[in-house]
Amino acid sequence: MAATLAELARRVHGRVRGDPGLVIEGVASLESAGPRDIAYVSDPKYLAQLATTAAGAVILTETDAERFRGNALIVENPHLGFARIAAGLHPESAPAPGIHPTAAVDGAARIAASASIGPQAVVEGGAAIGAGVQVGPGCYIARGAAIGDGTRLVARVVVLRDCVIGRNCLLHPGAIVGSDGFGYAKDGETWIKVPQLGRVVVGDDVEIGANTTIDRGALNDTVIGDGVKLDNQIQIAHNVRIGAHTAIAACVGIAGSSVIGRRCTIGGQAGLVGHIELVDDVHVTAGSLVTSSITRPGAYSSSLKAVPAEEWRRTAARLHRLEELARRVKRLEEKFAPSSEEHNT
Amino acid sequence: MAATLAELARRVHGRVRGDPGLVIEGVASLESAGPRDIAYVSDPKYLAQLATTAAGAVILTETDAERFRGNALIVENPHLGFARIAAGLHPESAPAPGIHPTAAVDGAARIAASASIGPQAVVEGGAAIGAGVQVGPGCYIARGAAIGDGTRLVARVVVLRDCVIGRNCLLHPGAIVGSDGFGYAKDGETWIKVPQLGRVVVGDDVEIGANTTIDRGALNDTVIGDGVKLDNQIQIAHNVRIGAHTAIAACVGIAGSSVIGRRCTIGGQAGLVGHIELVDDVHVTAGSLVTSSITRPGAYSSSLKAVPAEEWRRTAARLHRLEELARRVKRLEEKFAPSSEEHNT
Amino acid sequence: MAATLAELARRVHGRVRGDPGLVIEGVASLESAGPRDIAYVSDPKYLAQLATTAAGAVILTETDAERFRGNALIVENPHLGFARIAAGLHPESAPAPGIHPTAAVDGAARIAASASIGPQAVVEGGAAIGAGVQVGPGCYIARGAAIGDGTRLVARVVVLRDCVIGRNCLLHPGAIVGSDGFGYAKDGETWIKVPQLGRVVVGDDVEIGANTTIDRGALNDTVIGDGVKLDNQIQIAHNVRIGAHTAIAACVGIAGSSVIGRRCTIGGQAGLVGHIELVDDVHVTAGSLVTSSITRPGAYSSSLKAVPAEEWRRTAARLHRLEELARRVKRLEEKFAPSSEEHNT
Repeated sequence: MAATLAELARRVHGRVRGDPGLVIEGVASLESAGPRDIAYVSDPKYLAQLATTAAGAVILTETDAERFRGNALIVENPHLGFARIAAGLHPESAPAPGIHPTAAVDGAARIAASASIGPQAVVEGGAAIGAGVQVGPGCYIARGAAIGDGTRLVARVVVLRDCVIGRNCLLHPGAIVGSDGFGYAKDGETWIKVPQLGRVVVGDDVEIGANTTIDRGALNDTVIGDGVKLDNQIQIAHNVRIGAHTAIAACVGIAGSSVIGRRCTIGGQAGLVGHIELVDDVHVTAGSLVTSSITRPGAYSSSLKAVPAEEWRRTAARLHRLEELARRVKRLEEKFAPSSEEHNT
Repeated sequence: MAATLAELARRVHGRVRGDPGLVIEGVASLESAGPRDIAYVSDPKYLAQLATTAAGAVILTETDAERFRGNALIVENPHLGFARIAAGLHPESAPAPGIHPTAAVDGAARIAASASIGPQAVVEGGAAIGAGVQVGPGCYIARGAAIGDGTRLVARVVVLRDCVIGRNCLLHPGAIVGSDGFGYAKDGETWIKVPQLGRVVVGDDVEIGANTTIDRGALNDTVIGDGVKLDNQIQIAHNVRIGAHTAIAACVGIAGSSVIGRRCTIGGQAGLVGHIELVDDVHVTAGSLVTSSITRPGAYSSSLKAVPAEEWRRTAARLHRLEELARRVKRLEEKFAPSSEEHNT
Repeated sequence: MAATLAELARRVHGRVRGDPGLVIEGVASLESAGPRDIAYVSDPKYLAQLATTAAGAVILTETDAERFRGNALIVENPHLGFARIAAGLHPESAPAPGIHPTAAVDGAARIAASASIGPQAVVEGGAAIGAGVQVGPGCYIARGAAIGDGTRLVARVVVLRDCVIGRNCLLHPGAIVGSDGFGYAKDGETWIKVPQLGRVVVGDDVEIGANTTIDRGALNDTVIGDGVKLDNQIQIAHNVRIGAHTAIAACVGIAGSSVIGRRCTIGGQAGLVGHIELVDDVHVTAGSLVTSSITRPGAYSSSLKAVPAEEWRRTAARLHRLEELARRVKRLEEKFAPSSEEHNT
């Protein structure tokens, strides 16, 4: 899918400085790019590599372009320009429409003529597969589930009964949508299962990572907003609601009935307890645990950085005796600084 | 599966206040319920919704029923009553017995006539599938494995060689039972695999969540007791033993050879190191790390709650210098409070 | 695969004390071993069991052998000797070469005659499957992927387009190699996907645990070195590089572009943020979060151990007010110990 530099510039509303007729065949990093490749710089720490890159052209801001003598494609946001140009130069090859002979598709499933159902896939009766949808090898679409136009299920994706996936979504291998929520009532020492009767409803342009699991609602639905991006191995419990354009990194766990606003970001391995609410534009750092609602936008954190183990052993031991240290400080204050009484804690 | 209110009351040993002949078709939340639905209240914070609900009937305690003018089904434990009524009104539709033509079932597998083997499933020789078992689409039951009567494997569940699943269990998509434990011997800088020769033995009435993994024992077995409930994405290492009726929330990791008692609860993302023992009735809060045996029932915790990141940055920096702060307090004590010598730490 | 004690001794360069002609049929733990089994002791805490074991023979060090009156196989490293003997006595049964009739194998895939492709597996065109490879039930090998000689994919393993797996690797069920990295450029509030064009390249003798996910590189490759051992449910993001013989326990998350040295060990549930580097021989304890590069070998930690919840509640509350405690100490110092001014923090 080669293109001239001028053509690429048009695609990203950019400007060429240099040879507009140069044919570009692919994208590459500054280090590995050759004369038919286009690279980009958005992080200043890579600017030094401009001196030595063999790239045919580089996507740069106006300012950074001054530091480069080769062909430049000048845009406001080089990372964004790169994303669009890379997608154009390296399109995913789509399988031909149709149902693979090894797929097990129920006669009562509604499947668009332009959809492709891959080998070993299973589609049950009452499922609806939209136009241009790719159901990859080994996927399982249960009865009553609906997959919106243009969505791609890479492979071995499971979408359980009655769940709804929007348009132009991308679900990676091992993703599971609509597993039962973890709900029980106690009867003596025994846990009695509470049937999980809600659905999962996923908006448009959502990406769901490999081995990520999203539980169906207990009575109402679990809802994933438009444009939400979920990395690998995330767990989303029943009745959670995630606002549009929120991005969540790998290994995050979100407990039941919590509500996350729009445009939030949650760092890797962070956790949210259940039944809390985060407003729009909240950013949780990696490894933090959110234990109560957050009512103001901003960054939140509770993680600790690793230090040499011997040092940490002493610090942690001190921490576990912090109550005692505080009492000792209070005793000193009482003895020698009666005016500090206000710190009577 | 509609039923009259009187019928529902009999099922849960409850009492009707209002119209016993009212036909109920389904369960719903107070908010969304209509005149043919039954809802419930167990958390006092939802009592206010009783004034506005359109539910045909509500499951309530004797006391709470006084605050509701509509049809009430009065029980001791409304959550438990709801669980049972929901299961009766909304039964899972079971597939017809038999082996789907796309399943690959070895002739030497023993499969009960009342069992169903779904599309694309694989059952190897020597596997035993009990009465009424549902092996869902794409499941893999390896040689020598046994699945007890009435158990349901939803889809893409893997049960590896010789592992045993009890009766009336429910295994969700992506669950893996019997993967190799992580065991190696060192030979210079090289890790030499220690063959993992034990099994996983799962009791009756166990639920195993989506993408949860349970490793087989190294020499002896990994054992999951009766009535244990495991949420999604839990990792259970080789030789772990979990006592009956213990419930474990999502994303928990349990390292090798640890033993957990009966009726314990482990919060989401908590971790247990290997070779420790927890007595019965231990409760570990979400995100905590258990690093040594727990010999007394009760709640245990070590997690920290997220606060504004700037505030946390300062607190964490202080924490990492806690050793120094303690020394400063000691110096003050030595100078001004010689009687505090007992705090010589 | 029974063998005499003399034969076993030859395999591990050990020495028999006792009956060299004793026939051993299997390995077992000291507790459960019978007269045809061989057990081992490497941890001193099990030495006491030597008095009561019914094992036909025990693998021991020279020193420990003095505490045992039965047949001994004396080696320098009993754990290592046991690993090798167990592998010999209990070989994995390999399926016969050939392609199962239910597998969907593209005619343009190159498959060694000695390889076996299991039921319901999918192999796309341009994939290359080496000699003796076992592609288990339900695996998916995408176009252009290559699996090295002697490697075993247990079941439901996914290897995506163009990824490379080395020789003699072992991939457990649910492992996913080559899912897209989590890369986006921002356009207003919308995330625009950055195509993930690199591969995953896995060396020889690598083990990848159940439901572990390894993302493909964005432009360059994600690289897993020779002899690396990855436990279950690990997440490795795009462009990560892991040095040879590093072992990583379950539930670890490693963010994008981080580089880990050789012979490192990472404890369970630990996390590494992105774009950092760990030198060789770094050991991170379970549950710790590495937030910056580590330039010296050694052990690193930041995890906290669970204590009774009520005690922890007080300690954590104190921690969140540590800034205030530090100010109080400073005030005391200023008032009563002007010579302590150097602690002006």
